[in-house]
Amino acid sequence: MTTPRLGVCYFPEHWPREMWADDARRMVETGLSFVRIGEFAWSRIEPSAGNYQFEWLDEAIGTLADAGLKIILCTPTATPPKWLVDTMPDMLAADARGRPRMFGSRRHYDFAHEGYRKECARIVTKLAGRYGDHPAIVSWQTDNEYGCHDTVTSYGAVSRDAFRQWLAKRYASVAELNEAWGNVFWSKEYTSFDEVELPNLTVTEPNPAHMLAYRRFASDMVVEFNRVQTEILRQHAPGRDLVHNYMGRTLTFDHHDVSADLDVASWDSYPLGFLEQFGRDAAWKRWYVRAGDPDFQAFHHDLYRGMTGRWSVMEQQPGPVNWAPWNPAPEDGMVRAWTHEAIAHGAEYVSYFRWRQAPFGQEQFHAGMNRPDNSPDLAIGEAAQVARELADLPEAKTARADVALIVDYPSFWSMEAQSQGEDYDAFSLTMRLYSMLRMAGQNVDVISAHADLSGYKLVVVPNLPIVPGGFAERAIASGAELLFAPRCGSRTAEHRIPDNLGPGPLADLLGVKVLRVESMQPAIWRNLDGGVFERWFEFLDVIDAKVIEKSDGHPAITRKGRATYLAGWPDEAIARREVDAALERAGLTVLETGDDLRLRDRGNLRTIINYGPGERDCGHLLGKGDTVLVGGRNVPAAGITIVERKS
Amino acid sequence: MTTPRLGVCYFPEHWPREMWADDARRMVETGLSFVRIGEFAWSRIEPSAGNYQFEWLDEAIGTLADAGLKIILCTPTATPPKWLVDTMPDMLAADARGRPRMFGSRRHYDFAHEGYRKECARIVTKLAGRYGDHPAIVSWQTDNEYGCHDTVTSYGAVSRDAFRQWLAKRYASVAELNEAWGNVFWSKEYTSFDEVELPNLTVTEPNPAHMLAYRRFASDMVVEFNRVQTEILRQHAPGRDLVHNYMGRTLTFDHHDVSADLDVASWDSYPLGFLEQFGRDAAWKRWYVRAGDPDFQAFHHDLYRGMTGRWSVMEQQPGPVNWAPWNPAPEDGMVRAWTHEAIAHGAEYVSYFRWRQAPFGQEQFHAGMNRPDNSPDLAIGEAAQVARELADLPEAKTARADVALIVDYPSFWSMEAQSQGEDYDAFSLTMRLYSMLRMAGQNVDVISAHADLSGYKLVVVPNLPIVPGGFAERAIASGAELLFAPRCGSRTAEHRIPDNLGPGPLADLLGVKVLRVESMQPAIWRNLDGGVFERWFEFLDVIDAKVIEKSDGHPAITRKGRATYLAGWPDEAIARREVDAALERAGLTVLETGDDLRLRDRGNLRTIINYGPGERDCGHLLGKGDTVLVGGRNVPAAGITIVERKS
Amino acid sequence: MTTPRLGVCYFPEHWPREMWADDARRMVETGLSFVRIGEFAWSRIEPSAGNYQFEWLDEAIGTLADAGLKIILCTPTATPPKWLVDTMPDMLAADARGRPRMFGSRRHYDFAHEGYRKECARIVTKLAGRYGDHPAIVSWQTDNEYGCHDTVTSYGAVSRDAFRQWLAKRYASVAELNEAWGNVFWSKEYTSFDEVELPNLTVTEPNPAHMLAYRRFASDMVVEFNRVQTEILRQHAPGRDLVHNYMGRTLTFDHHDVSADLDVASWDSYPLGFLEQFGRDAAWKRWYVRAGDPDFQAFHHDLYRGMTGRWSVMEQQPGPVNWAPWNPAPEDGMVRAWTHEAIAHGAEYVSYFRWRQAPFGQEQFHAGMNRPDNSPDLAIGEAAQVARELADLPEAKTARADVALIVDYPSFWSMEAQSQGEDYDAFSLTMRLYSMLRMAGQNVDVISAHADLSGYKLVVVPNLPIVPGGFAERAIASGAELLFAPRCGSRTAEHRIPDNLGPGPLADLLGVKVLRVESMQPAIWRNLDGGVFERWFEFLDVIDAKVIEKSDGHPAITRKGRATYLAGWPDEAIARREVDAALERAGLTVLETGDDLRLRDRGNLRTIINYGPGERDCGHLLGKGDTVLVGGRNVPAAGITIVERKS
Repeated sequence: MTTPRLGVCYFPEHWPREMWADDARRMVETGLSFVRIGEFAWSRIEPSAGNYQFEWLDEAIGTLADAGLKIILCTPTATPPKWLVDTMPDMLAADARGRPRMFGSRRHYDFAHEGYRKECARIVTKLAGRYGDHPAIVSWQTDNEYGCHDTVTSYGAVSRDAFRQWLAKRYASVAELNEAWGNVFWSKEYTSFDEVELPNLTVTEPNPAHMLAYRRFASDMVVEFNRVQTEILRQHAPGRDLVHNYMGRTLTFDHHDVSADLDVASWDSYPLGFLEQFGRDAAWKRWYVRAGDPDFQAFHHDLYRGMTGRWSVMEQQPGPVNWAPWNPAPEDGMVRAWTHEAIAHGAEYVSYFRWRQAPFGQEQFHAGMNRPDNSPDLAIGEAAQVARELADLPEAKTARADVALIVDYPSFWSMEAQSQGEDYDAFSLTMRLYSMLRMAGQNVDVISAHADLSGYKLVVVPNLPIVPGGFAERAIASGAELLFAPRCGSRTAEHRIPDNLGPGPLADLLGVKVLRVESMQPAIWRNLDGGVFERWFEFLDVIDAKVIEKSDGHPAITRKGRATYLAGWPDEAIARREVDAALERAGLTVLETGDDLRLRDRGNLRTIINYGPGERDCGHLLGKGDTVLVGGRNVPAAGITIVERKS
Repeated sequence: MTTPRLGVCYFPEHWPREMWADDARRMVETGLSFVRIGEFAWSRIEPSAGNYQFEWLDEAIGTLADAGLKIILCTPTATPPKWLVDTMPDMLAADARGRPRMFGSRRHYDFAHEGYRKECARIVTKLAGRYGDHPAIVSWQTDNEYGCHDTVTSYGAVSRDAFRQWLAKRYASVAELNEAWGNVFWSKEYTSFDEVELPNLTVTEPNPAHMLAYRRFASDMVVEFNRVQTEILRQHAPGRDLVHNYMGRTLTFDHHDVSADLDVASWDSYPLGFLEQFGRDAAWKRWYVRAGDPDFQAFHHDLYRGMTGRWSVMEQQPGPVNWAPWNPAPEDGMVRAWTHEAIAHGAEYVSYFRWRQAPFGQEQFHAGMNRPDNSPDLAIGEAAQVARELADLPEAKTARADVALIVDYPSFWSMEAQSQGEDYDAFSLTMRLYSMLRMAGQNVDVISAHADLSGYKLVVVPNLPIVPGGFAERAIASGAELLFAPRCGSRTAEHRIPDNLGPGPLADLLGVKVLRVESMQPAIWRNLDGGVFERWFEFLDVIDAKVIEKSDGHPAITRKGRATYLAGWPDEAIARREVDAALERAGLTVLETGDDLRLRDRGNLRTIINYGPGERDCGHLLGKGDTVLVGGRNVPAAGITIVERKS
Repeated sequence: MTTPRLGVCYFPEHWPREMWADDARRMVETGLSFVRIGEFAWSRIEPSAGNYQFEWLDEAIGTLADAGLKIILCTPTATPPKWLVDTMPDMLAADARGRPRMFGSRRHYDFAHEGYRKECARIVTKLAGRYGDHPAIVSWQTDNEYGCHDTVTSYGAVSRDAFRQWLAKRYASVAELNEAWGNVFWSKEYTSFDEVELPNLTVTEPNPAHMLAYRRFASDMVVEFNRVQTEILRQHAPGRDLVHNYMGRTLTFDHHDVSADLDVASWDSYPLGFLEQFGRDAAWKRWYVRAGDPDFQAFHHDLYRGMTGRWSVMEQQPGPVNWAPWNPAPEDGMVRAWTHEAIAHGAEYVSYFRWRQAPFGQEQFHAGMNRPDNSPDLAIGEAAQVARELADLPEAKTARADVALIVDYPSFWSMEAQSQGEDYDAFSLTMRLYSMLRMAGQNVDVISAHADLSGYKLVVVPNLPIVPGGFAERAIASGAELLFAPRCGSRTAEHRIPDNLGPGPLADLLGVKVLRVESMQPAIWRNLDGGVFERWFEFLDVIDAKVIEKSDGHPAITRKGRATYLAGWPDEAIARREVDAALERAGLTVLETGDDLRLRDRGNLRTIINYGPGERDCGHLLGKGDTVLVGGRNVPAAGITIVERKS
């Protein structure tokens, strides 16, 4: 899969066999080249224990392949059937209150359950054994949306026992654990690993070190669970791309770790649902109600590209969805625009969810490319248009960006374990800085804190309380301009304050020491020139850095060499000012996109998208001599313009 | 009971016997003709297992009857005593989290519990055997306020097992159930009825078909529970009116089904408590803080009149109550006005709750007709005034209205199972259309979707996703003007999208097809002339109808023949405009009552009530030649005017 | 301890022994004279069952004593170690949903658990046996912050069984209990004490009498639990002050009862944390964000002084804390100001929490006098300044105030058992009246309703639904002006409406009878001259009193003799007007402090504190001839002025 392709998610088991051939024919006609199937189909593959029914799937695969479609086959492990659950009810995860999370929807399992892992190995072996070398099957998807519905952590006996075992491996002795966690505090010292409970239902807050360890454990369970499947697939389906479809704003497990066992990191892109769920404020949610947040998808495109280099959109929103508090219709043309956004960021393929809206079950309000009565819905036309447009575009390849933004999952867990301020949401701060980069016209790589930093001109670090070994050295060695948000380096890997206080291992790099911190309620600020620090402020001892700006006499922004430190949570104005200034120091050109426009370059193709509800002129984003390939200088709502840049 | 009468709820067991005769005397003196007793008295009738104590009740009944009062005797089954509960603790219902709902207040039972049904049969048989032919006892009330405190559903093993049995009766096989519910979706297919769980505590939302079935089951359990008692009472208390006192805004069971076993549908009317709990917005709650919502009670009067034709108010708020977030005092005179409102709607009787405020227990803040020290509270004077006024009014009988509004309980359950928009509250939409009819001066019958529609000039359908068989035919045959709100016909009886999409069985009647729907967050609207659709909008294929109005190019209001379809949730302006227009098309006269005034006709008596805090002129609601019987043209706050109309 | 002293809370077990001597030396250098240790140290004193390790504690005590510090030694019973909990897991309390509140933080025990009480007796006996006669140990603290984290009530089997036993002692028979609670209401009559459940998880609200009894029981369990320890300490550590460190705004147990077993009532004063948690509204929380509520600490100082006469601040906030929703830094100088405020109210000592910020555990964001790297934080400088200032002040002793304000714990429980209005928060009303007194420049004694009232010129009663026997007589005998807020006398000790209605036993004193009450939603008011009653209003029968003011024709404020009754919840304007007027009637001088200033007299020393963010002139609070000892007429933010008054 080297040129961008389009596909669709399909559930043949939901429809009469008589429809399959016509469905396949119309997929091809629309310009789709592949189809994803098999997800959630366990109860049809194995209706009762050991009663395998592959005939229908053979036929479905055959019909689709015969039409010329390539196939992504899913393992069905996100939906174990009831008969299986009833053989080992303790496989159900437990919620934070200790109650089993019951059968009746999906993702009803505890990642740590050995018995369920064995069942998964069994069904995956069966599937892979049968279809591993099928020529039309080019890729396998493991499970579905790990972590969706907050399913990574489980608070029952299964995870508790597994956690104890995990601890016993991590720490040489319980004394070492006690020391690492500071358990002398409040007499929490254990005499045995078997005394350790899960960090829920405590009288007041649990030890943040305990929480962090539990989050690490839970993430590791996802990695192990996925690996059970990838190892089987590697063996039985050699040469096929292994993929998992991640979700948006899922911080509960380390996607870098899971991705190490995959070929392609994919994700499910639902711009309107995400806006309703995660939109930054009410005005933002209203303004972009039919287009989605202009940066949310782009961020995840960049994030998942940073996993293995190869990435895709496995599920692309095709119309109204069913799962957000409100589910408006997208602006006409927006499905096309979202698809181009993904491709501009380097997606190998974009797959629409789903071929036909289901008239039953939980998602009957989720639009598809076709309606339940098989009449074509709007998305099918927009997909066909994209297919035609892609066919006409010249070859292009996503280049490494000049700007990198660091994302580190354990750092999110550390921050959640002890936010110290009710609205210190590290993801929001990450998005704020990402948005400022994007509104400054930049292409951004979102990368791990363990990644190679060489070649970047600017590295932005929104949230890195726990600094991996060697990070400071790599940062310096890169020669990049560095922009650090507060709290970086403020905790050790075991969530303790470093012996040298914050910023801990970054002390030499930044030349400051954090003496005191404060969180601030809304409308309490620390004033700066043209803006404020809100939510968070740090009182610094400036040891070996230049004070760039003070607030009420306290150092607020410092710089040592190429490393700038923000001693507070920047509001939008300060974030923009500081990002723009850092870009300029890095020798990069700030190209303000304006409020609703955004751009992304792929090779020398520049894609410009209008997320606003009104027409916008994109002339300032075009260079002299650029060739317009799609659209034009006036970009209507939901419109795109693609140009081939001269240079 | 053919002319309107007044009564009171009385708890002789709360007071020394020495007070009973004087209480009875003063009731009669006040103009009350009956008294309701026995509710909640189980622990006095049977203080321990099999230890029946009827002597006190004999005396109470005797004393009241001797004073000339008629008696409504209640079964005490809403409050099983602790000794009984302890014999079978699993009779306690479980909440949606699976926790038992414990003894200590009331309604602590699972409707499906066979053992508790037997205990109810036993105590009812005892009571009915003893008092069934007592000449003063003219009516029996079963239990108290089914569904109050959200007690219809239970999420424990008892209801789960009963649900499985209910399913096994409803579906020929588990395969049929799987097909009906679309369980192939997410591999939810069962291999046995015994695999079915209750639809709570699932990881994400359960199948709406599962939820709907569970709601139908739970409603059926109420019907069965009530029927256990009515069958005994029919046998032992022949000729007595069987009644149950329903509550306001209770949608959790099908009142039409329960009422089929009753003679009189009664309800408990607490205007201020309901306003505080259910008031439509903060401004409305403040404006009507001492009068109650002007339409809420009227709606329920009309609703319960539509059950069996005979209805009453069993508990009428007499002053401040104790159970709302805030409990203000009613405007002086309001108790009288509420009573007249009920009678104007055709109530056979109105019974005040309660004779004397209890100085102990949960309701010690609930006012009565007398205070705990037996001094008269305000309500007793207002009741006496009503009694005198009723004595002077001519005979009159409630006529069938020209306008019908449809209420269908399963349709509420379907909507709750999958609202698709956080604020799509079908009851609110129902109330909005009802209020517009009432503000247009109409008398309204609120009727079942299974009811005979003939004779109506306008039928309004606020919420009918599940259309009963024959409804479209009856609607057409009636010749009535028809006004449909959105989502009508959008689901089958098993909560699936109809094969022909929405409006399903109404497709021919309405001439449209629903291609796509959207829910909208607050402040996102679809514009119309003079107002908007909020919350919900549908994209229509107009097949065989006239487009009356468009919004941004999309058909928004259509009409085919006499059937008008609103493709969105109308704001108040559009609701008023459309209701008024429909009335005019139906040949009815719109008589705008103005903001605080409301009217209701009973025969040729017109009762006008002022719900506002200031005086209002009601001249526009009077006809030439009308005779004023009570009040006058200027209606003070809490005032009423009754006229005899000329025609 | 007769002159005010300073100290610090210290956890030697958190730090290497090598640091101890230097820590002690620096404490003394700072001007601290004592140190509190041992709290939470159980896992170090007894790392496993019966394995006592006192050597480290011997050394710590020795090191501190050698430096000249006096010691307050704590019992470690707030944090039983895991090995102990695992020997009897039912010692864990249960939350209101019945779930165990698990090990992992602190206060994880049920006060009623006999087994745990025995374990506490054992460890306290061990400690007291070893250190009871140590010359440096001048005081013992029992446990830590009873009731913190809402830990007084427990809803599991242990407390249920203990409650049944407690009831069996309180009531002669279950019939008496039934009668007392009015259990005939809703058939709640029991046939045995063993039928009584805890008042949680009921279908709708439980009987308020049941709730009140349960709250009395739970409070008694705290008293018993504490007494187990004090009896041992009295025996083994004779002559030492027994103390407990209470918390702020903790209403869940009767502090007067617990204090009867103590010598000194201490409390933990965290002004910024309390403001964030309990601040009266958003504007207030912003204005005082870095100073704390100007009256909250003062109220608690006065409250705890009223326990045994001797009191102290055991934990004084030294910088940002970790446990509020937001945790801002205090204004520079505020730690000093808070300390002076406490001393001005008569504190024997003020102890800062803690010596050094912990770099691990739950409180790593809680500032100390030193930072985790042992560099001095700001508090150490402010403490040293206070120490110097105290050394220069003349001797002075807190006098009995002219004004008393009544606090009664059972009355809070009664109000919570049945508030009748969502925002009827009796503590807020108490604080409102207290604040008005303080803003009128008064020194106030906060005293029990059982206390001697003689000598007071004004007694304010914000919340006394349950009036102790003899209170009215004592009030009259005192000759004081009396100001009663509504609901006083509205309930009996068993939470029933008195036979003579409210104000029950105060009827003769006040000359009114409460006929009806109402609660009012926000923005519904009863108008008065210059203000309103909000939230609550009572309709009075004025029998033998003067109507001072009416609202819409209803008596609103009445007076009989020296007793004034407010028939509603006064807004700030009315509260101020009525408090000022009562002071004047009492012959006291109203000295308006102005918005941010507050004052407190100790002997003839007057301490003036500026809680506002800007400089304030305090000239109006100084008398002719007063000698300024600290500060001056202009008081900066966080500044104080101390004068010696002439008279």
